[in-house]
Amino acid sequence: MTSIGIYGSLGRMGQAIAAVAPELNAKVAGGADAQDDPATIAARADVLIDFSAPQALEAHLAAARAAGKPIVVGTTGLSPQHHALIDEAAKDIAVLQTGNTSLGIGLLQRLVREAAAQLGPDWDIEIVEMHHRHKVDAPSGTALMLGKAAAAGMGTTLAEAEVTDRAGTVGARASGTIGLASLRGGSVVGDHSVVFATQGERIELTHRADDRAIFAHGAVKAALWLAGKPAGRYSMDQVLGG
Amino acid sequence: MTSIGIYGSLGRMGQAIAAVAPELNAKVAGGADAQDDPATIAARADVLIDFSAPQALEAHLAAARAAGKPIVVGTTGLSPQHHALIDEAAKDIAVLQTGNTSLGIGLLQRLVREAAAQLGPDWDIEIVEMHHRHKVDAPSGTALMLGKAAAAGMGTTLAEAEVTDRAGTVGARASGTIGLASLRGGSVVGDHSVVFATQGERIELTHRADDRAIFAHGAVKAALWLAGKPAGRYSMDQVLGG
Amino acid sequence: MTSIGIYGSLGRMGQAIAAVAPELNAKVAGGADAQDDPATIAARADVLIDFSAPQALEAHLAAARAAGKPIVVGTTGLSPQHHALIDEAAKDIAVLQTGNTSLGIGLLQRLVREAAAQLGPDWDIEIVEMHHRHKVDAPSGTALMLGKAAAAGMGTTLAEAEVTDRAGTVGARASGTIGLASLRGGSVVGDHSVVFATQGERIELTHRADDRAIFAHGAVKAALWLAGKPAGRYSMDQVLGG
Amino acid sequence: MTSIGIYGSLGRMGQAIAAVAPELNAKVAGGADAQDDPATIAARADVLIDFSAPQALEAHLAAARAAGKPIVVGTTGLSPQHHALIDEAAKDIAVLQTGNTSLGIGLLQRLVREAAAQLGPDWDIEIVEMHHRHKVDAPSGTALMLGKAAAAGMGTTLAEAEVTDRAGTVGARASGTIGLASLRGGSVVGDHSVVFATQGERIELTHRADDRAIFAHGAVKAALWLAGKPAGRYSMDQVLGG
Repeated sequence: MTSIGIYGSLGRMGQAIAAVAPELNAKVAGGADAQDDPATIAARADVLIDFSAPQALEAHLAAARAAGKPIVVGTTGLSPQHHALIDEAAKDIAVLQTGNTSLGIGLLQRLVREAAAQLGPDWDIEIVEMHHRHKVDAPSGTALMLGKAAAAGMGTTLAEAEVTDRAGTVGARASGTIGLASLRGGSVVGDHSVVFATQGERIELTHRADDRAIFAHGAVKAALWLAGKPAGRYSMDQVLGG
Repeated sequence: MTSIGIYGSLGRMGQAIAAVAPELNAKVAGGADAQDDPATIAARADVLIDFSAPQALEAHLAAARAAGKPIVVGTTGLSPQHHALIDEAAKDIAVLQTGNTSLGIGLLQRLVREAAAQLGPDWDIEIVEMHHRHKVDAPSGTALMLGKAAAAGMGTTLAEAEVTDRAGTVGARASGTIGLASLRGGSVVGDHSVVFATQGERIELTHRADDRAIFAHGAVKAALWLAGKPAGRYSMDQVLGG
Repeated sequence: MTSIGIYGSLGRMGQAIAAVAPELNAKVAGGADAQDDPATIAARADVLIDFSAPQALEAHLAAARAAGKPIVVGTTGLSPQHHALIDEAAKDIAVLQTGNTSLGIGLLQRLVREAAAQLGPDWDIEIVEMHHRHKVDAPSGTALMLGKAAAAGMGTTLAEAEVTDRAGTVGARASGTIGLASLRGGSVVGDHSVVFATQGERIELTHRADDRAIFAHGAVKAALWLAGKPAGRYSMDQVLGG
Repeated sequence: MTSIGIYGSLGRMGQAIAAVAPELNAKVAGGADAQDDPATIAARADVLIDFSAPQALEAHLAAARAAGKPIVVGTTGLSPQHHALIDEAAKDIAVLQTGNTSLGIGLLQRLVREAAAQLGPDWDIEIVEMHHRHKVDAPSGTALMLGKAAAAGMGTTLAEAEVTDRAGTVGARASGTIGLASLRGGSVVGDHSVVFATQGERIELTHRADDRAIFAHGAVKAALWLAGKPAGRYSMDQVLGG
């Protein structure tokens, strides 16, 4: 039975992961939080999951690398510097980083990239998401992740293509852009739609998260899949196909 | 058979109205455009429809009033001054002004106001619309109209409640606000959804316009309904119930 | 503080009601199940909620009537005979019977009836619902309830209008019918859409239940609203407006 | 400039194809209908499109084969015998057969197959479609095509998996099935959604056809793509990637 070590084990996601692991035939080797030495748990676990804080990432990657253990990074709010650290660590160990550990979003990301690549420039791409009233940032990290997948499929970057401020007399839609819109209300866990629209037809690729438990479930699935993989950087959509 | 006079008869809507009128058992008394005297057609028609330009509205209302004929105003881009002119004219003649002459939107407007009034402050209201890639303004006039209906139901105004710039770290959603988001792409004639979300449940009231012909059709229906009505200001949702 | 008596207090809904009542400033006077005398709790509570079984309804209504206490009936699977018993009881006490105690569905039911009445025979009505994979019956009781609301708005009955078997060469859609379709999958708590479609446009009125807690919450809200009401039969949509 | 020959040139699709071809830089070599010799147009065109009737397919394939010309078969209502004829012809010429010539549906078909293969048996698959009130059969041919794509992804056949009669006490959903539901109303050109649902999350892959012109447009695109291809059987989703 694969044993999982959890960084950020006292957080909401850490606790949810510990709760769901047994259902998926995994055991929890233990957890580590701010006050703990990350090396201890890295030594004991077969695979690590990090849902802590960006500032702790460097130490967690170093511990994983020193112990030669694969790690799933689900911590959000990463900067380009954090991504460079991940790329560096991925030379020695398997690292799967994702902004959303649901399996459905993993697949959606792949379908969006593929659709954007196939449909070509006659199809306009728009992304709309809805989350609960307490969410403080917009667009959601997952919407940005889907936007990046769409941009990659189009052969551009989201930074280049993104339009988030569509209010007033904004003029006709510029070709090659990706619009992002955010709705907030109630207790919505997270809905995301990517709309591809051309003359006379539309494709809508939608994901609805009905229960937060899917994120812990997907994180454990990802960890089980990652255990034993060779060094390299992996993504969530590979877990489903694995 | 009711005879209809059309201001703006050479425009796209004017022509569509003339085309659809016979199917609805109406006859077209004639049309008037920039160069014509609005009084001529006002004298000959039983009821008038105006789809011209805001700057012509004053003259058209005056002509309708002088002839004692009801008038449907579908011209968009009206200012508060134009609305004051309409209120003034409505003392003597029947005036139905609307930013969207589809019968479905007329009903949706009523349902939105009613839902907003009934559901109360625990339910957050968000509006999202999608239109074709050539539309230059956002949110759509119809989205604003629906926002006003929601605000009226909540006992506030859209100016007070409206949020259109949700990007970045915007903080938790403020209670009593109405979010508006706009998607653009392809050839979409016009989709509008008003979402009411609270803890654990959501209501979505959606209209999809699949064919531009509905606007001409609704304008003629409105004119037939308005013919013979006493002085006063009317709205599109009354046409359905009539 | 209003005190609530619960018939079926050991069932899932009974327990959920007891759990949510304090949040809504209600207190639970106690519960009764199969083995208990329904009169005891009827005497002690200000208002009763029944989520037990159809065969117990007669005894519960009799106890409520004898004690002169209002009662919310949320038990499903009622026959016309049960409805006759309710009508009879409603001569002496306030009775609110509903197949779905969510406040959103209560409002949707009202909007559907109103829309069906306003839109008239040119608009076709279709209902589609989705529930989790374990649900054994189709269409859902709530879909049938919405179908009845639509039929009432159209001036007919669901028995007359209902079409549930649309597979094969079924011919063109008959005017005045109401189609019902059911999807099953995953853990969906309950989505319902009523679609009104005519030439060139559509209205969709949708409810999404994201969390089962809304049903207990709505039941308590209904009980609080019903307490002190005069004899008569009430419905869920009145609770919102109250 | 590629020249296209049209079987069924007097039908609605045949005429729409002739109208749209010039916009796509194709020229129409001519058309053939019931009374014409199919060999004449096969000799003159670079590529053929068949939108006639199933009973004419054998003669059209024979003419295409004799002339060594690729052929797009968009005729619907084909039997297994017709498919055997197509397989036989595809030994000598390029044949692209599809039940829906829109490019969006072509892509959706591919995404559905891929999603069904990746997601695995924990995800239930349901298909719902809506068409105008005049459509006489249900589910739509396109829904069946999407159902076949899903079944192929699951490693089964639609005949094995299909459930279309879900009304009454039907019991819990059987694993490995694909539900199909049909809505009818108004003038809807064609909406299709494939829903994948599991514990806590859902993916919905949707196509909306807003304008019938997309089918002629896609047929011409397919013909231009097929011209010059080696013998073999092709499908619509390859056109986008080509």
